[in-house]
Amino acid sequence: MPRTHRKTTSSLIGEKLADFRVGVDNAIFSVDTAQNRLLVLLVMRHEEPFLGQWSLPGTLVRQGESLEDAAYRILSEKIRARNLYLEQLYTFGGPDRDPREAKDSYDVRYLSVSYFALVRFAEAELIADGVSGIAWYPVDQLPELAFDHNKILEYGHRRLRNKLEYSPVAFDVLPELFTLSDLFQLYTTVLGENFSDYSNFRSRLLKLGFLSDTGVKVSRGAGRPASLYRFDAEAFAPLKDKPLVFI
Amino acid sequence: MPRTHRKTTSSLIGEKLADFRVGVDNAIFSVDTAQNRLLVLLVMRHEEPFLGQWSLPGTLVRQGESLEDAAYRILSEKIRARNLYLEQLYTFGGPDRDPREAKDSYDVRYLSVSYFALVRFAEAELIADGVSGIAWYPVDQLPELAFDHNKILEYGHRRLRNKLEYSPVAFDVLPELFTLSDLFQLYTTVLGENFSDYSNFRSRLLKLGFLSDTGVKVSRGAGRPASLYRFDAEAFAPLKDKPLVFI
Repeated sequence: MPRTHRKTTSSLIGEKLADFRVGVDNAIFSVDTAQNRLLVLLVMRHEEPFLGQWSLPGTLVRQGESLEDAAYRILSEKIRARNLYLEQLYTFGGPDRDPREAKDSYDVRYLSVSYFALVRFAEAELIADGVSGIAWYPVDQLPELAFDHNKILEYGHRRLRNKLEYSPVAFDVLPELFTLSDLFQLYTTVLGENFSDYSNFRSRLLKLGFLSDTGVKVSRGAGRPASLYRFDAEAFAPLKDKPLVFI
Repeated sequence: MPRTHRKTTSSLIGEKLADFRVGVDNAIFSVDTAQNRLLVLLVMRHEEPFLGQWSLPGTLVRQGESLEDAAYRILSEKIRARNLYLEQLYTFGGPDRDPREAKDSYDVRYLSVSYFALVRFAEAELIADGVSGIAWYPVDQLPELAFDHNKILEYGHRRLRNKLEYSPVAFDVLPELFTLSDLFQLYTTVLGENFSDYSNFRSRLLKLGFLSDTGVKVSRGAGRPASLYRFDAEAFAPLKDKPLVFI
């Protein structure tokens, strides 16, 4: 068959529009500050495809439902949290990302709009529904996940690192009162050792002027008592729209 | 009718999955450095809905086509450019964003994955297809656009401002050789007057160490001759993954 002919045929086929189901998948991160572990919430799938494999908590978007509503719906089914931070992460929609796309299955494309969420570890309560497994997994010990969820998670991890570098998102994760060493430890847990040395980090953050010393001191282990700080949202307000680097 | 009954009914309806068509819409920006205007590429719709209204260049995703391929397809149909920068922007997928969702129309949801692109104005050649209109519009003189495209564009504009603040994207937009005053003018065009004063901006950028003086001077208007600079990608490489602020 001459090449031009094949090209014509395939470009005709190619012009048919794709039909889609749209899923929402949440990359929900938390930091166990007591153990210095970065965690992500996984659920075990209890249906095909990928039955019995760990995955990001997700759902398919329903009639009349917005993407964000779907993301909050799945969150509220898996976790009870007083505060949480949620934003859209990225949309993964290449062909062949879901086995249900096959002609002998549902024969529609499955697109995933992923959301990035952060919750305070101590305040977040997992909801076990008695059917499927649910667990906080350390990000550095992930199993092989269903679909392209390892890729989504990698993207989410990068977003988390960026947000720590450029925004005050750490204070959504830390307890309300924290020592500067807690804050440094959180950054080290997410960004890795050697992202900065402690004294540079400390002086940089204090200079920005939105950490207020509560006057209360705590003793932990053998060291000197350390001051407890609070994030001062009012002092931060004028900096909100300015480009800042936190490390 | 008692509330519990209504709730049950509506939650049953609500559990039906939505069917989607997926569109890709490109927010393509350029800066006319000679005239200090921030521009966005618009096309006039030549079919319903919104016949005759300006819109972002977009397309529906075809069978077997990835989202990014669709974004590049529409770009290549509208513009010839040697270099361009493209990244995913945001996904807009709420119900009622497209009149074609109506029961008496196609009765499927229309989701838009938007892409953000930047091209060099002098190198970009618009492709008029003889049917629909196409134009670079100044961002501060936009008409009312089709669908939710004004909202998408606003989001893209914010992304552009962020990218100028945190990344070397300006050098994808400027000609290869530029004066520091050209660079300042570009920032002013996008970020608005008074984002910084010229001498602070100048010393900050030079200190970062990736602008190399070509030794060539140009005269423009009445001022002293100014040095032409080049972005030194090699000098920038070690900074690539470090958090930086450009203004």
